[in-house]
Amino acid sequence: MDFTLSDREVHFRDAVRHFIDTHIRPRQADHDAQEHEGDRWKPIPVIEELKPLAKTAGLWNLFMPPQSGQPPVDDSFAFEGTQLSNLEYALCAEEMGKVGWASEVFNCSAPDTGNMEVLLRYGTRAQKDRWLKPLMDGAIRSAFLMTEPDVASSDATNIQSSIIRDGEDYVINGRKWWSSGTGDPRCQVAIVMGKSDPEGGRHASQSMILVPLDTPGVKIERMLSVYGYDHAPHGHGEVSLTNVRVPVENMLLGEGRGFEIAQGRLGPGRIHHCMRTIGVAETAIEAMAKRLTSRAAFGKRIAEHSVWEERVARARIDIEMSRLLCLKAADMMDRAGNKSAKLEIAMIKVQAPQMALKILDDAIQAHGGGGVSGDYELAHQWAALRTLRFADGPDEVHARAIAREEFGKHGEWRKAR
Amino acid sequence: MDFTLSDREVHFRDAVRHFIDTHIRPRQADHDAQEHEGDRWKPIPVIEELKPLAKTAGLWNLFMPPQSGQPPVDDSFAFEGTQLSNLEYALCAEEMGKVGWASEVFNCSAPDTGNMEVLLRYGTRAQKDRWLKPLMDGAIRSAFLMTEPDVASSDATNIQSSIIRDGEDYVINGRKWWSSGTGDPRCQVAIVMGKSDPEGGRHASQSMILVPLDTPGVKIERMLSVYGYDHAPHGHGEVSLTNVRVPVENMLLGEGRGFEIAQGRLGPGRIHHCMRTIGVAETAIEAMAKRLTSRAAFGKRIAEHSVWEERVARARIDIEMSRLLCLKAADMMDRAGNKSAKLEIAMIKVQAPQMALKILDDAIQAHGGGGVSGDYELAHQWAALRTLRFADGPDEVHARAIAREEFGKHGEWRKAR
Amino acid sequence: MDFTLSDREVHFRDAVRHFIDTHIRPRQADHDAQEHEGDRWKPIPVIEELKPLAKTAGLWNLFMPPQSGQPPVDDSFAFEGTQLSNLEYALCAEEMGKVGWASEVFNCSAPDTGNMEVLLRYGTRAQKDRWLKPLMDGAIRSAFLMTEPDVASSDATNIQSSIIRDGEDYVINGRKWWSSGTGDPRCQVAIVMGKSDPEGGRHASQSMILVPLDTPGVKIERMLSVYGYDHAPHGHGEVSLTNVRVPVENMLLGEGRGFEIAQGRLGPGRIHHCMRTIGVAETAIEAMAKRLTSRAAFGKRIAEHSVWEERVARARIDIEMSRLLCLKAADMMDRAGNKSAKLEIAMIKVQAPQMALKILDDAIQAHGGGGVSGDYELAHQWAALRTLRFADGPDEVHARAIAREEFGKHGEWRKAR
Amino acid sequence: MDFTLSDREVHFRDAVRHFIDTHIRPRQADHDAQEHEGDRWKPIPVIEELKPLAKTAGLWNLFMPPQSGQPPVDDSFAFEGTQLSNLEYALCAEEMGKVGWASEVFNCSAPDTGNMEVLLRYGTRAQKDRWLKPLMDGAIRSAFLMTEPDVASSDATNIQSSIIRDGEDYVINGRKWWSSGTGDPRCQVAIVMGKSDPEGGRHASQSMILVPLDTPGVKIERMLSVYGYDHAPHGHGEVSLTNVRVPVENMLLGEGRGFEIAQGRLGPGRIHHCMRTIGVAETAIEAMAKRLTSRAAFGKRIAEHSVWEERVARARIDIEMSRLLCLKAADMMDRAGNKSAKLEIAMIKVQAPQMALKILDDAIQAHGGGGVSGDYELAHQWAALRTLRFADGPDEVHARAIAREEFGKHGEWRKAR
Repeated sequence: MDFTLSDREVHFRDAVRHFIDTHIRPRQADHDAQEHEGDRWKPIPVIEELKPLAKTAGLWNLFMPPQSGQPPVDDSFAFEGTQLSNLEYALCAEEMGKVGWASEVFNCSAPDTGNMEVLLRYGTRAQKDRWLKPLMDGAIRSAFLMTEPDVASSDATNIQSSIIRDGEDYVINGRKWWSSGTGDPRCQVAIVMGKSDPEGGRHASQSMILVPLDTPGVKIERMLSVYGYDHAPHGHGEVSLTNVRVPVENMLLGEGRGFEIAQGRLGPGRIHHCMRTIGVAETAIEAMAKRLTSRAAFGKRIAEHSVWEERVARARIDIEMSRLLCLKAADMMDRAGNKSAKLEIAMIKVQAPQMALKILDDAIQAHGGGGVSGDYELAHQWAALRTLRFADGPDEVHARAIAREEFGKHGEWRKAR
Repeated sequence: MDFTLSDREVHFRDAVRHFIDTHIRPRQADHDAQEHEGDRWKPIPVIEELKPLAKTAGLWNLFMPPQSGQPPVDDSFAFEGTQLSNLEYALCAEEMGKVGWASEVFNCSAPDTGNMEVLLRYGTRAQKDRWLKPLMDGAIRSAFLMTEPDVASSDATNIQSSIIRDGEDYVINGRKWWSSGTGDPRCQVAIVMGKSDPEGGRHASQSMILVPLDTPGVKIERMLSVYGYDHAPHGHGEVSLTNVRVPVENMLLGEGRGFEIAQGRLGPGRIHHCMRTIGVAETAIEAMAKRLTSRAAFGKRIAEHSVWEERVARARIDIEMSRLLCLKAADMMDRAGNKSAKLEIAMIKVQAPQMALKILDDAIQAHGGGGVSGDYELAHQWAALRTLRFADGPDEVHARAIAREEFGKHGEWRKAR
Repeated sequence: MDFTLSDREVHFRDAVRHFIDTHIRPRQADHDAQEHEGDRWKPIPVIEELKPLAKTAGLWNLFMPPQSGQPPVDDSFAFEGTQLSNLEYALCAEEMGKVGWASEVFNCSAPDTGNMEVLLRYGTRAQKDRWLKPLMDGAIRSAFLMTEPDVASSDATNIQSSIIRDGEDYVINGRKWWSSGTGDPRCQVAIVMGKSDPEGGRHASQSMILVPLDTPGVKIERMLSVYGYDHAPHGHGEVSLTNVRVPVENMLLGEGRGFEIAQGRLGPGRIHHCMRTIGVAETAIEAMAKRLTSRAAFGKRIAEHSVWEERVARARIDIEMSRLLCLKAADMMDRAGNKSAKLEIAMIKVQAPQMALKILDDAIQAHGGGGVSGDYELAHQWAALRTLRFADGPDEVHARAIAREEFGKHGEWRKAR
Repeated sequence: MDFTLSDREVHFRDAVRHFIDTHIRPRQADHDAQEHEGDRWKPIPVIEELKPLAKTAGLWNLFMPPQSGQPPVDDSFAFEGTQLSNLEYALCAEEMGKVGWASEVFNCSAPDTGNMEVLLRYGTRAQKDRWLKPLMDGAIRSAFLMTEPDVASSDATNIQSSIIRDGEDYVINGRKWWSSGTGDPRCQVAIVMGKSDPEGGRHASQSMILVPLDTPGVKIERMLSVYGYDHAPHGHGEVSLTNVRVPVENMLLGEGRGFEIAQGRLGPGRIHHCMRTIGVAETAIEAMAKRLTSRAAFGKRIAEHSVWEERVARARIDIEMSRLLCLKAADMMDRAGNKSAKLEIAMIKVQAPQMALKILDDAIQAHGGGGVSGDYELAHQWAALRTLRFADGPDEVHARAIAREEFGKHGEWRKAR
């Protein structure tokens, strides 16, 4: 075991950190102004402006995982990214998490990352040419349509949308929501999950299919809010699919293999989210410490009131532990594959958001009225991270998986299964 | 001790509940539509429409406390309210808390309630005629300007705004924020707290003065957001005061007596907030239970997953205990005065928001994506209640007061003071 | 509603408090010395010495409930206690809880209280004469044998002991543990729960029967420890019952009615336990405050470190709320019967031990090494109260009942039942 | 970074694990019987019997750190241990923690480990020959006398015992408690901390000196209990020192350098404690999972009640994170020295006991009555670990240090110091 970073790990982390310090953080004011002026549902110019710089700097598509437990379906594929290991990428993702809009500059933002991975691993040559290429170029964006408003989507077997073969087409009907990214005019394609065979059982009834968003029958009914934020221009759409017809070539991997893709897709994406979350937690503890050391009440700096010592110490302990768990999960993915790291991925998926939410909330308390306002990123970040306690499966479902793993170590439980 | 409600307690609670069921809840859709259409910084028609009905029903200014530990300065004053006891009012406030916009229909919304109380107790005949009358008529609204962006306002001695006598005027300079209600065009007057004598020590340096909002030099710089919500049309303003000049007659109670007023003002207002908060918690546990009983995952209703049993049971226990503590505080105020109930008021001020935030957060988790969206009141309520953990003094300051009371029971501590 | 104590409530509470201050607390050193000298499994002389004083003072069998939702089976019965209401008694029980051995002085200690209640309500004339009389005289003690080591006894249907009719006798076989009080040589009788009809279903399979402890086949296998404490001379036995034969007259209420008795028995007993627990919490917050105000570290009294302010404030809030909830439950039992107060009893059963354990643990932390030692009562009390989180049903089972009550308010759940 | 164990790390961990499985665990019953029979304050035969086997297996004094940031004072010293790195040893310590009495078999139990380290680093040739040699041989045991009953010893400047030079002797007066190990007749020497120069300021007033326990004036006043356990034969003594006279040669490192030794001593010792604690937590989660999967209530295995899924999942997450943090701290000590790892050591010192206590408490709840009894190790372990929240400095003091490190990153705080 060796807890020191390798030269390569330091190199990429520092390159990303340096790029952010040099090009991104100084443009925060521009970003905020552009985000709020005129029609808010359009790309933000400063991001578009910085993307070519990141590309030139070799900090582009950093996440494309070279060894994620499964070789690319098609080795001839050439649109590769920087080929960082999951561990190397995780360190970069933490840096990106420290500025809310940094990920997109590096073409490393969700849900595109997960969608590109799916296309890389499971896409046909034609699907790659049609969608993966422009996604990796940063020319278009994409969405992932899974959750539905009418059922407890935490249990994937509840998904009701249908994907029914009709001659050379599939016909899709259903209603999805939390279709993140659908607010952006560049969002051109979605991966849609639905039932192709209601009788297929837990593991064979679901399929995933590519649906261009301009297909007739696709309608963005409304954009949802997260607490009072709309997250424009990205946004979260509620999308109805009414007799949406796409050619059979759009099916991913094969009918009934949606569950298999879902399993493979989520590992690296969760690690990314978690490391960004840890980056957010670092900004929160920093903001908290700065605030507490700069203001006084009742005759001394607030930092000297020991109730804050306890909270800050707990925050630091929790950040350090969460980071180690996340990096360990990434390291396991690199060495033994996503499947072997399943338990560790579930653990950090539960842990990271809970940890960061607590620290953000304490930081907000330290800031009083300022904390809940737009003057700091704290409230905005809190609201965004709150969704991670149920997005990609609620805490309760991951806890269930972790506990069952533990129970499974003991004979009596195994016998009963 | 008797935990059953008296006939009078039941009467007023049920009258308010019935009015809400009959007139207010059925208009929720109207309210929501009006709140979001056109210029959002204007009164909401349905509220104005319902106010006369409440007045007619004798459910108007219910909070005006007949016996709050201190007689009105001027007994001849005639604009009295329904004269409920604090305990009776508390039961009504819980009902009002169940619908976010109900309080205003009964002319019982903050910060007017606290301001009216201040005017009733400490106002001169002229001040009452000028401001209390239209407030009690529901014709105008008011603000309370205390917190400042540049200092830790939790320690009132930090307040920097100045109120300096100059001939027959006072001249006011400073910057305030979280001046709630200043977004509403009907908001015509503010009570402003500031330093009239920087050398006056903890208890004599601060004054409170009435400032009409159209006085030259008063400027609403911007409206603040709370987790992305703007709370229009009420809103929370940041207000600059630049050489604002008002006649000496606008001083409340007397120069240097601001701290005294602040102490007297906050008791009933806190009880109101807390009971409304308990009403919110009741709506949250109801929403949570409905959701959990109506959806299924992994082969059974979510309500049958025992992790939810624990949360719902904890929610019910916490609501019941918090309500009892709040009602006990109200009862003590009625029987022994606000000052005697100081400790109980501090306790419920800390307890009620923490309790309701936890239940709302669990209810949000139970709703998944729906919970953070605008489809339910949960996220909106959570954001609003989150501010109560520092508004009117942060939890930490109240905890300090409660603990010191405990320490003061023991000789060694007292000797050291 | 009225939160002030009535004269009668004050009278009994103060009489108990005064008796404890005058007669019991001054003998603590005697008690501790006697408890540890020689054979520890014998009555403690100072308790025997004080019992006649309590009897003379009219503070004896205070708990015997006059109106517990069900009239005594036999009105001619004359061994009555002081006839306090549950609410009056609750206030006294809090006082008793402040000194670990006070309850027995007043003949108010578990499990005798519950057993006497069962005999009063459900016993025959003969059963009363034989067992209730000496119990009420304080001449003998008793045990309640329910929990079994081999099954999850939280679900009463799991109970395995058998009570089988054989001519004019019942024959009992089984193994019980946590048979509290069986260490005391005065413990002469036990109420034993067991299955008389394995096919009787949830509500008719169990019976309760009186078993003199000198009956052949009754064997105390060993005394159990609680975190290293043996609780001598009371103690907690593991008891085997091997072909134990008692006459049919010993059956309580009737074959198959054990569940019914269990339900009726537990209400007042839980309230007693909870109020004693609140008394313990009061001693803990007092010890904590004294310690914090009397020692200094890092240049100031430990009480001035705000991390302790927060804990002490939380302790005070939790004590006040728990007491109110407990008194409300007692009041409901008095006014509407034990059954109507079922939900409130379950709530305080969960709440009181959790509350007190947290405060004791904080107080222990405040005392450092002293806290875990025998120099203070804190560790001993903590260990004793820890058992209340599963005795008489674990928290999880009560939480389940509370949650189901909540779910039952909504139609969809009810329909599904 | 590399989270896989090296061959050497695996080798030693597995060697210890195998030795425990082969020689120690099978003797648990012998140990328990011997521990409770006859005079309990004497060495336990089975431990003495196994020590030569561990020595032969090369698993002896494993902790002696080869590179702990400071070379041994005397390089010629030859009584070296196995020379594991801190990281390697940490993995072994986790294994040892799984059986309460295993550490002593390997001559790796506190406080001898810390005392040996002090002697190795700071001892003179003569001190080493006299005390270190027999300690490393496992022939004698030792104590560390620091904490005092009369002051808040968490602040070392409060220590009152005096060590005053008088000719060629030092004369020691004072009262110590929690002098662990003084119950064992083999305990022959103590390191005593006391004030040699009351005017020496925070860092120069304290000294550490070697005191043979048979020196006149040393008196073990009593043995303390931890909850109800006495931890015989090791035990925790209260020791009075009355005009205890030892030669000046017994001074360690030099007068006034006690604080310096204390700082150096605690690092590795804390890591050992923490890793043993993690071993305990592993036994707790295992016991909990076994219990939950082997019993049923309300129609299903208790493991299937999701409230337990959440607790078990949280336990697994917390164990994994705590282990990583502990190993990282050990790795930093190995690579950069104890001083550089100061923050990480403080973090794991706070984290590990809190984590394990929670898991033990949940496991106890899962076991009901069995959990608090002597039938499982859970209650005993809980009580032992509870002391770690204040031994070697309470959580609050470590939290203070961690928070101050965080605050120190920001200019305004530093300027103010």
